[in-house]
Amino acid sequence: MGRKEFNSYSTDWKPPTYTVDERGKVVDGYTPIGRSNWGRWGEDDVRGTANLITPELILRAAGLVKRGEVFSLGLPLAEDTPRFPARPPAKHYITQSGSDAVVGSPTSAGDLHGFVSNDDAIDLPLQNATQWDGLAHVQTEDTLYNGWWAGNITAARGAEIMGIGNMRESFIGRGVLLDLARHAGVDSLEPGFVIPPEMLDEAIAAQGVEVGTGDILLLRTGYLSRWWSLTTGAEKEAYFGNGEPGLGQGSIDWLADHDIAAIACDTVGLEVLPGEPDEVRKLPVHQALLVDLGLTIGELWDLDTLAEDCAKDGVWEFLLVAPPMYIPRAVASAINPIAIK
Amino acid sequence: MGRKEFNSYSTDWKPPTYTVDERGKVVDGYTPIGRSNWGRWGEDDVRGTANLITPELILRAAGLVKRGEVFSLGLPLAEDTPRFPARPPAKHYITQSGSDAVVGSPTSAGDLHGFVSNDDAIDLPLQNATQWDGLAHVQTEDTLYNGWWAGNITAARGAEIMGIGNMRESFIGRGVLLDLARHAGVDSLEPGFVIPPEMLDEAIAAQGVEVGTGDILLLRTGYLSRWWSLTTGAEKEAYFGNGEPGLGQGSIDWLADHDIAAIACDTVGLEVLPGEPDEVRKLPVHQALLVDLGLTIGELWDLDTLAEDCAKDGVWEFLLVAPPMYIPRAVASAINPIAIK
Amino acid sequence: MGRKEFNSYSTDWKPPTYTVDERGKVVDGYTPIGRSNWGRWGEDDVRGTANLITPELILRAAGLVKRGEVFSLGLPLAEDTPRFPARPPAKHYITQSGSDAVVGSPTSAGDLHGFVSNDDAIDLPLQNATQWDGLAHVQTEDTLYNGWWAGNITAARGAEIMGIGNMRESFIGRGVLLDLARHAGVDSLEPGFVIPPEMLDEAIAAQGVEVGTGDILLLRTGYLSRWWSLTTGAEKEAYFGNGEPGLGQGSIDWLADHDIAAIACDTVGLEVLPGEPDEVRKLPVHQALLVDLGLTIGELWDLDTLAEDCAKDGVWEFLLVAPPMYIPRAVASAINPIAIK
Amino acid sequence: MGRKEFNSYSTDWKPPTYTVDERGKVVDGYTPIGRSNWGRWGEDDVRGTANLITPELILRAAGLVKRGEVFSLGLPLAEDTPRFPARPPAKHYITQSGSDAVVGSPTSAGDLHGFVSNDDAIDLPLQNATQWDGLAHVQTEDTLYNGWWAGNITAARGAEIMGIGNMRESFIGRGVLLDLARHAGVDSLEPGFVIPPEMLDEAIAAQGVEVGTGDILLLRTGYLSRWWSLTTGAEKEAYFGNGEPGLGQGSIDWLADHDIAAIACDTVGLEVLPGEPDEVRKLPVHQALLVDLGLTIGELWDLDTLAEDCAKDGVWEFLLVAPPMYIPRAVASAINPIAIK
Repeated sequence: MGRKEFNSYSTDWKPPTYTVDERGKVVDGYTPIGRSNWGRWGEDDVRGTANLITPELILRAAGLVKRGEVFSLGLPLAEDTPRFPARPPAKHYITQSGSDAVVGSPTSAGDLHGFVSNDDAIDLPLQNATQWDGLAHVQTEDTLYNGWWAGNITAARGAEIMGIGNMRESFIGRGVLLDLARHAGVDSLEPGFVIPPEMLDEAIAAQGVEVGTGDILLLRTGYLSRWWSLTTGAEKEAYFGNGEPGLGQGSIDWLADHDIAAIACDTVGLEVLPGEPDEVRKLPVHQALLVDLGLTIGELWDLDTLAEDCAKDGVWEFLLVAPPMYIPRAVASAINPIAIK
Repeated sequence: MGRKEFNSYSTDWKPPTYTVDERGKVVDGYTPIGRSNWGRWGEDDVRGTANLITPELILRAAGLVKRGEVFSLGLPLAEDTPRFPARPPAKHYITQSGSDAVVGSPTSAGDLHGFVSNDDAIDLPLQNATQWDGLAHVQTEDTLYNGWWAGNITAARGAEIMGIGNMRESFIGRGVLLDLARHAGVDSLEPGFVIPPEMLDEAIAAQGVEVGTGDILLLRTGYLSRWWSLTTGAEKEAYFGNGEPGLGQGSIDWLADHDIAAIACDTVGLEVLPGEPDEVRKLPVHQALLVDLGLTIGELWDLDTLAEDCAKDGVWEFLLVAPPMYIPRAVASAINPIAIK
Repeated sequence: MGRKEFNSYSTDWKPPTYTVDERGKVVDGYTPIGRSNWGRWGEDDVRGTANLITPELILRAAGLVKRGEVFSLGLPLAEDTPRFPARPPAKHYITQSGSDAVVGSPTSAGDLHGFVSNDDAIDLPLQNATQWDGLAHVQTEDTLYNGWWAGNITAARGAEIMGIGNMRESFIGRGVLLDLARHAGVDSLEPGFVIPPEMLDEAIAAQGVEVGTGDILLLRTGYLSRWWSLTTGAEKEAYFGNGEPGLGQGSIDWLADHDIAAIACDTVGLEVLPGEPDEVRKLPVHQALLVDLGLTIGELWDLDTLAEDCAKDGVWEFLLVAPPMYIPRAVASAINPIAIK
Repeated sequence: MGRKEFNSYSTDWKPPTYTVDERGKVVDGYTPIGRSNWGRWGEDDVRGTANLITPELILRAAGLVKRGEVFSLGLPLAEDTPRFPARPPAKHYITQSGSDAVVGSPTSAGDLHGFVSNDDAIDLPLQNATQWDGLAHVQTEDTLYNGWWAGNITAARGAEIMGIGNMRESFIGRGVLLDLARHAGVDSLEPGFVIPPEMLDEAIAAQGVEVGTGDILLLRTGYLSRWWSLTTGAEKEAYFGNGEPGLGQGSIDWLADHDIAAIACDTVGLEVLPGEPDEVRKLPVHQALLVDLGLTIGELWDLDTLAEDCAKDGVWEFLLVAPPMYIPRAVASAINPIAIK
């Protein structure tokens, strides 16, 4: 097709000028324009900042469990759950139902104590509801994190390199929740509000918590809590159409400085929408985090109940267990993250 | 349809003689023929033995983390993963690929640092690969655990009662692995081998571990490890066709006595196949556990690496975090269970 | 569940009082309340008025081809095609793409003249876009056309009786188009407009055509043509939400009198929506046609281009070839009907 | 990925040396190595030899209807239908069942004459069972028929150029059946048997029929009829694994000379498998027909009943109505072709 500008396709095409080496990495292609973790964990690395979580940190995170309380941070994988509108809803379907049993019931025959079973399946867009964007989800030009070539991801074979299956034992460690809405004294930050890095520092201070190497940082904007009061299709369209609060370009260095392992939030995109006027790239936070830093992003996490609890006991850290589904060549994963306090 | 014998349908039908009350429970229908937990956690209970896991037990389980080592016990959700042959394979498909980016590449145009993304989805039978059988998976006659009516599970609405969504914060607690193959000194127990309850006691003693209230018990037969050497379609057909080692009717009381919260294994059905000659019902272990006891069953768990580690350090207990996907009205769930030692 | 009123479910349930005989037919259940074709083509009939199309009629219909012009009457099976909003859109997906070929291109290697292929699939609700409602689509109470039991249609096995596969050689014969919008001198009849049977007679007279035994009658209300100018989601929601023009209860006898083989239209439901105030049943036209008469209904047919042509040459009859997809146990089928003049 | 030989991928890649012009056509890429129809119907043509069917030919074909007998040539779109093993089976699923109606039955309530409906869907690989390979299905190197670029077919957008939707009014015309098995006096030609072009001429002469411009040619090898007696999975694997009878490179000129509009057969690939030893390309018949000639190929057509009828009445020509499903950007289509005699 050939692309002349963002998100527009033209018919003509000129082959790219880069080549791809034997490992599957782009030669003479894009290289990070800002902070970068390329090469930090070796040339063959496909896990990025997930590498920051060490057994020592996991051990310490387990020590954060003080009461044995469990919080699921996952939205329901259902047709009417909040999701990015361009993606289709999950479709749960039954392949053998209890109603089938009733119409073919052994209670109407001589077979005492009959075994009958039900079965089901789900057709699930992998970035539906609460999710991880894997590192194969976004590239800059044709290049993924650590210089891997986007052409390694095909319809025929999926993500042959950097599939989310590599993360099947990742994202288990210390979670820290920053409740930015509560800190700002509002129910929800407003669409278009750029969270300044100073606000992160202030919330950290106010909550009396620390954020450091290998942590999984959860940001609560409160914007998800607005979803539940929406009733009409038009309201739900506007919910996403109006944009959302989020991080701006100014936070990229902050995140790199703190060496966190992953970041998640209660919005569909983590970064502010509409974008800042001075952006030098489209979705600059996605590109900086996923491509340059190899920092996995979580979206649409349901943090409300957990935030209530943290506000009550004043403890904003916990053991977080949020591995992706083990789909070897997937680019993303729906998840049911578990926080344990 | 009307059913005259197991798994055979006839055309004629007589309505059942039971009725269903306002809560959705069968009146004058099946009641447990052996040990039972019906009513133990109230008439409205839909979680069964998952109720046995208390915050205290979770807190204690977190204390089992000594080294910070993580073990994923999930099989890959891929087309060629082991699965019960009557269910279709998972179908992972790409809806926007990196190869699409290359043919529409911004590197051939003026748009520097272009954002491009990939997307994917999976059509996933929910009992594919490593899974929980939810309590809505199996009924006896038309009655589910705690007397709920199977007719509450429809193609139109899924499991309106006892959907696996109720378990989204469950199955997080102390896991105990019994490596029965290792205990028997074999690579794998043989198909058709009935694991006697005494063998469970002996393995417990030999491993120097205890099993008690609220534990999640993992049984390793070794049979899954045979799968990986199979190459032809015929061999894989025979793998499941020949049956598998598993629990027999004699273990039901043992499981009830120990008040475990859930049980999982490395076979497709937990219970011995082909069944014992003196069975009074089809799949008696499924019926006793899921229907009478409300005890959730895990199948096709990949326990080999964990077992290696446990044999090495002599520690057979760990924090297990194995919540289902949060699909509100599902009867089962594919999972990626995480053990942390 | 038990149902106390239309489309509402309650938890309690009493078994029905009917039984089902060995053929799969309801005994002591619903029988037609008006005109009926039950038994007309035998007790085992599953094709209803499709039986009216004889080889003689097909032969005569082939004689209507005078110019060799072909008209596809099918809407695109695409995500944004008009469809009943309660049904999900079709999802076409590529499993091997041309872009995959480019990134794995043999032109970059020594293999001259390499074979490469593309593959795709569609997840298709069978009543998406242009469709036949099969006779298994609708029942009155628990009884389908000719007395068959609805319980013969299960999630586990599909429509074991009266699946649309029985129609795989049906709906090939003489088609007659009545352009009611043109006859009324409007672009489109209005939502809620009840087409009186007299209007059918008048259009027949004005168009100088006859309608008789075994014909497939196509009614054009013009309402579909309004769809194409809609742009916003809210407009499209209102399009279906406002109802549509269609047949009322008063046309049922007319259709029975004319002994047509099938009827199709350019609306989503054929019958007027919202329904007439004096209806004695919900969707009375569906119930009379599909259940009592065994008369298959076609919906969302794209008749505009054909109508233009018929208006031009004054010929409103043609050979129609509109078999369903051959899905043996389906209740409905998306179709691409072909008119040949 | 980069490809060094057929069907093998390597990690490294060099961009191709061709470019793509504004229309979406390859510049300095592959051009036909034998007979070619490129440019014959204009530079923008996407329908190839389907252009050969004129209204005059359709009119004449309608005149072949002498008895009004209809023959469906489609295999069932069901899980156990014959299909190329590398493609998954069709998955028909019910989203609202008759059994659901029974458990929520209005017959147990006061709502007389209740409307209840059933709904279903199918997840259908588009080359499942009886099908058309569209012209976007196969390319040589990166180039499709008429010089179109394969990169126009993406996971994100499907076949933006030459999608099978362009054919929605095609493949309606004169069909001619050549029963090669009957002609050879066998139930089925053997796997690996190369049908020589002389055999086509002899069958034409023996059947007393002519084949000419714009005809749709149906070849019956009898090999499909062997499928129905297979019972085990191993037998079905061998059925396709052993290859099949079919056309060889020697027939390509014959097909070009006769200027047929399309060709279909009762095997999975039309061309002989395993291929001839002296092949200069992989699947040379596919490449010559689909890429060089723009000649659409039909596969797995069920010709047995039609052949019986033709043998009985000695008439081997008929009106054939075989349009694809109207999926605008699909590369192929499952079909239910209709022959009318």
